[in-house]
Amino acid sequence: MNSANSVGIVTPQHAVFEEPLHLASGETLPSFTLVYETYGRLNQAKSNAILICHALSGHHHAAGYHHEDETKPGWWDSCIGPGKPIDTNRFFVVSLNNLGGCHGSTGPRSINPSTSKLWGPDFPQVQVSDWVSSQARLADHLGISTWAAVIGGSLGGMQAMQWSIQYPDRLKYCLVIASAMDLSAQNIAFNEIARQAILSDTHFHEGRYLEHDTNPSQGLALARMVGHVTYLSDDAMASKFGRDLRRGSFDKSVTEQVEFQVESYLRYQGSQFSTSFDANTYILMTKALDYFDLACDFEGDSVEAFKQAKAKFLVVSFSTDWRFSPRRSREITDALIAAGRSVSYAEIEAKEGHDAFLMPIPRYLDVLSAYLSRVAEECA
Amino acid sequence: MNSANSVGIVTPQHAVFEEPLHLASGETLPSFTLVYETYGRLNQAKSNAILICHALSGHHHAAGYHHEDETKPGWWDSCIGPGKPIDTNRFFVVSLNNLGGCHGSTGPRSINPSTSKLWGPDFPQVQVSDWVSSQARLADHLGISTWAAVIGGSLGGMQAMQWSIQYPDRLKYCLVIASAMDLSAQNIAFNEIARQAILSDTHFHEGRYLEHDTNPSQGLALARMVGHVTYLSDDAMASKFGRDLRRGSFDKSVTEQVEFQVESYLRYQGSQFSTSFDANTYILMTKALDYFDLACDFEGDSVEAFKQAKAKFLVVSFSTDWRFSPRRSREITDALIAAGRSVSYAEIEAKEGHDAFLMPIPRYLDVLSAYLSRVAEECA
Repeated sequence: MNSANSVGIVTPQHAVFEEPLHLASGETLPSFTLVYETYGRLNQAKSNAILICHALSGHHHAAGYHHEDETKPGWWDSCIGPGKPIDTNRFFVVSLNNLGGCHGSTGPRSINPSTSKLWGPDFPQVQVSDWVSSQARLADHLGISTWAAVIGGSLGGMQAMQWSIQYPDRLKYCLVIASAMDLSAQNIAFNEIARQAILSDTHFHEGRYLEHDTNPSQGLALARMVGHVTYLSDDAMASKFGRDLRRGSFDKSVTEQVEFQVESYLRYQGSQFSTSFDANTYILMTKALDYFDLACDFEGDSVEAFKQAKAKFLVVSFSTDWRFSPRRSREITDALIAAGRSVSYAEIEAKEGHDAFLMPIPRYLDVLSAYLSRVAEECA
Repeated sequence: MNSANSVGIVTPQHAVFEEPLHLASGETLPSFTLVYETYGRLNQAKSNAILICHALSGHHHAAGYHHEDETKPGWWDSCIGPGKPIDTNRFFVVSLNNLGGCHGSTGPRSINPSTSKLWGPDFPQVQVSDWVSSQARLADHLGISTWAAVIGGSLGGMQAMQWSIQYPDRLKYCLVIASAMDLSAQNIAFNEIARQAILSDTHFHEGRYLEHDTNPSQGLALARMVGHVTYLSDDAMASKFGRDLRRGSFDKSVTEQVEFQVESYLRYQGSQFSTSFDANTYILMTKALDYFDLACDFEGDSVEAFKQAKAKFLVVSFSTDWRFSPRRSREITDALIAAGRSVSYAEIEAKEGHDAFLMPIPRYLDVLSAYLSRVAEECA
């Protein structure tokens, strides 16, 4: 554990909601649990709370450490902490694991109370709007009527936007990072490949792998590899690996042993992920991504959608992000302007592709710091 | 069959080579067969022959039809035929299936003469330079001492470049389309994902699926899906599919049945491919792509490599091709210029991504026609 500018040791908490949640699909979750962490202190006016919405493979552990001997902090530790852009000296930060997740919130690995068996593949397909509803319940639970800001990158940015039109009075600022109002066909296609990789693993057993005491780890690993390659830019991979060899050599006579660094790296990343993530959750989260369409209740008119919003917006994109390209962020910005909303837009030069939103890129951190400083003053 | 401007019915031929082929890996193929087609007539001087080199999933059937009742012509029929850019009224065109292929040339589905069993995964890893050596044997067989031109797209372009430095006196023109002097880390990564998809299919049986009377069809389908998505541009997919649904609807209550057009299209493409292509060949071809490094015998100096060449070059790229981007083609062009070679470069505006090299894009066909007209005059 590196305690400099860290929120230090954090303990996940659980909130149990006994009242049924009616989902967009028409199904109902009779009850559910959300696991979450908080950093910083809620002020007396309860006006300084920030909600962090996670992306595809994220979870509630966004900052700090769970144990003294941990070496890796939460997934957004570069942004959350004392003196950092999401400054825990000024804000009370809430980070949760979404419904359908596999890190402690109710999801496919939970027990279905009506059957007393694992939900598995029968867990209802939750959508972005359902996550926002469940997050509103968490806000109620914490006594927070209005968030100072809701912040998310990628799929998290979709949740932030959905907050702005679903509960316009419950957030003052909305920070949408490396996101889009809906996925492109190419993005859906990559998600479909990831799902097919999982579905075609013989250990998937139509989603009932836990009952078969097994895991579709090769399918999950492949799915992760697809994600990993597409979330990095070509340039980032070039500077990270180039054509460097891990073993073998290019005297041409030993091609059977030739292995590029990038190959072993990918296999390692895939295999790590496959032991720590749930396949049904991965399928569910990618579908939530595919199905999201900000304007779907407004006849496809995103300007009309954003006319519901009252928050002020910051939209951020990264130059080499080709899965959620700057063009997609400019579409958000344009729709917000046309809807008469207050919006700032920053396109950050970064070579890391979509993954840049998780990286400590100085100009990115500066933009967030400057913007959130204003938020802190207004919401103190 | 549509006979307008078509080479019509063609019959594949076989050339058997009894003399051993010494491979770059140090291994030796004791004998081998190449299947090929020819279109047009070889002139008396044998000076009007063009060699077509195929890409990853290509084969010898580049133009015309095998039967009267076929509806789909060869894979490059848009470019090859009477009056077309590769004009069969003027040129004698040779198109082969490469060694290691699965369409009739010696490869993993052939019998290993030393064991009398299928080669399968034991077929030696051939490299681009081996293909060029075997193609030179085919030229000898046909009595062609010098090609008017060697032409290839993608992996085919690598063969064309390799020809220019391996047999500088045996080609007058070299046409390199949508190619690169070596693959980027990102490209290797996508190939590795495709291979892992095949290797992790339980029906792969370490490459001995034929002996097990099975086929790793799901792995192959996935591999093809990865290729397919990455060979198309985001724009091409957007205009082809957008977010159109194949079934289901977005009233939110029937998400289980929602299926995007792009998903069913991908699954269809993958499944078609998996029944028509050999998994060991796919692995072998992707490795040949990964291993290719034009400058590897010249201490990484591509200018030195191209100093061996005597041909004149045409280099072509496509604006939205992100797997073999225009930047990679400009690198080829720059190296050729620095090596003092004659080179023309055309970057074609096209929305189809890497697949554009197979498409009848008017400016692309015009560029090829104009260039090859000059070649035809010189090599008549």
